[in-house]
Amino acid sequence: MPRSREIHLVVRPHGMPQPTDFALVEVDVPEAADGEVLIRNAFMSVDPYMRGRMNDAKSYVPPFQLGEVLTGGAVGQVVTSRNDRFEEGAWVVHNLGWRELALSDGAGLLPFDAAAGPVSTGLGVLGMPGLTAYVGLLDVGRAEAGETVYVSGAAGAVGSAVGQIAKLKGCRVIGSAGSAEKVAWLKELGFDEAFDYHEVPAGDALSEGIDVYFDNVGGSTLEAALAALRVRGRVVACGAISQYNATELPAGPRNLFLAVTKRLRIEGFIVSDHFDRMPGFLGEVAPWVRDGSVRYRETVVEGIENAPAAFIGLLGGENIGKMLVKVGPEP
Amino acid sequence: MPRSREIHLVVRPHGMPQPTDFALVEVDVPEAADGEVLIRNAFMSVDPYMRGRMNDAKSYVPPFQLGEVLTGGAVGQVVTSRNDRFEEGAWVVHNLGWRELALSDGAGLLPFDAAAGPVSTGLGVLGMPGLTAYVGLLDVGRAEAGETVYVSGAAGAVGSAVGQIAKLKGCRVIGSAGSAEKVAWLKELGFDEAFDYHEVPAGDALSEGIDVYFDNVGGSTLEAALAALRVRGRVVACGAISQYNATELPAGPRNLFLAVTKRLRIEGFIVSDHFDRMPGFLGEVAPWVRDGSVRYRETVVEGIENAPAAFIGLLGGENIGKMLVKVGPEP
Repeated sequence: MPRSREIHLVVRPHGMPQPTDFALVEVDVPEAADGEVLIRNAFMSVDPYMRGRMNDAKSYVPPFQLGEVLTGGAVGQVVTSRNDRFEEGAWVVHNLGWRELALSDGAGLLPFDAAAGPVSTGLGVLGMPGLTAYVGLLDVGRAEAGETVYVSGAAGAVGSAVGQIAKLKGCRVIGSAGSAEKVAWLKELGFDEAFDYHEVPAGDALSEGIDVYFDNVGGSTLEAALAALRVRGRVVACGAISQYNATELPAGPRNLFLAVTKRLRIEGFIVSDHFDRMPGFLGEVAPWVRDGSVRYRETVVEGIENAPAAFIGLLGGENIGKMLVKVGPEP
Repeated sequence: MPRSREIHLVVRPHGMPQPTDFALVEVDVPEAADGEVLIRNAFMSVDPYMRGRMNDAKSYVPPFQLGEVLTGGAVGQVVTSRNDRFEEGAWVVHNLGWRELALSDGAGLLPFDAAAGPVSTGLGVLGMPGLTAYVGLLDVGRAEAGETVYVSGAAGAVGSAVGQIAKLKGCRVIGSAGSAEKVAWLKELGFDEAFDYHEVPAGDALSEGIDVYFDNVGGSTLEAALAALRVRGRVVACGAISQYNATELPAGPRNLFLAVTKRLRIEGFIVSDHFDRMPGFLGEVAPWVRDGSVRYRETVVEGIENAPAAFIGLLGGENIGKMLVKVGPEP
């Protein structure tokens, strides 16, 4: 019987997660039963939203259970198939969690065409983060050519896609990130302006005004963006990484009344409500990725045993672009 | 030459306005020139938004100028007309300010049909506050039959219209206000639930969940409403009377991240952007007012010299329904 290593949550983190909140566990994997496939993962996805699921709190997805495998995105190859819909050798993106081998009855498996590009992009620019950027910017934020878009967390998987798609749509783009190296990369990507939020107050960087704020960080950055938004501006509420490790309720934006005086719209969304947009997104963005109009970077950590460290590093801003854990062979 | 008394702002209030921030001034009124009309006001409108204009701050309307007449809504009769569009004896709603007599070239005058109801309603349930309720609830909040609507400041001119229109549209309605007398009136109006926010924490009163929050007060009530909103809930950001006298930036809602997890939309609006909806509003709501389906109350202060006290009373919650100052004869 094959063996698989997997990551369990064993302690709910208080504040920033610690390595001891996680455990590496080795388990037997039964043979694929009728209708099932066995998947060998190549990459696992490390995403900020997972921090919320580590708390025992009601949210849009239920909390992770202690002593069970962490669920999250992964891409892998079907190595055994007893399901007519999936051939052996096919690549699939799935949400079966932080493990080397995964059994599935086929539900929720998305085929990924390995000829179209590196399979890791199925977890990044051509996967959930890319769709998040696309839907948030265009459907929720309704960014229009000629408008100014500001995105925080701009060197992450979502933020870097937001900025590049906005540029391709004719917007002026401002991005913020947490290091000089990240800022340099944003400028390479064609952002009109980029700043390190440790060095430049967001209020100064946004003093000429913005029309859309794509919020990945929350906190004082959101307050500065509310002040900078022009009349009929929009806030795309996507994430609040500055607050995910907060151990008490963080201060809210003190200037929310500007929503009235400037007729602002602040709207949150969850990408899983918008999977119907995947074909339109791939139809428009995949060619841009192929021809280099949309670029991406990956920060790859090797080995499932290092997944907790990768996750802690993500929350600390150590990644540029998509944070991945490589757990098996790629094509 | 006729004489008119008017109210000037002479000191910008710090916190709650004081009577000494205002002055009563008597002036000569020239004769109506060619194209002009002279209006004798019957009622002046006292509105919460005027507090913001007393600060020297950038907002959607410019600040009041010191030493000049306060501008605000009023309804009056044309007593002299040298303008073909307005007959002598006609009633008009206008924004020419806190004065007994007003000269106008006709710009911005809205005719009011005195046969349709008391002229005071042109400043309340059939005027700007009623349109605010209608547009906010239906166009911004998109309240639907079967949904639960919560409105704060519910015994005010806007709030009482919001609740009654929502009931007529098939919603369940919860209202909050600041006294037992106001709460009793809300129940008379058919609100499903009403509570005194001094007595009952909003979080307790809203524990079964809401779909739309029509926000007139801001502050901790907004935070409680964010917590109570269901998935895809909406906040209609209309006002924040709890904060208008704040002398420093008030605390913001600490739970704004719920906008993401619950896919909330928080949207501000200004009624003057929506005057194109006036015919639709009057066509639907005026019959309801005539047949008693929509009721209203007025708190009327007599005499222009008492307008500052009326305004201070409004900010302190002394009014039930529309706060008006009677300054001249009505039909």
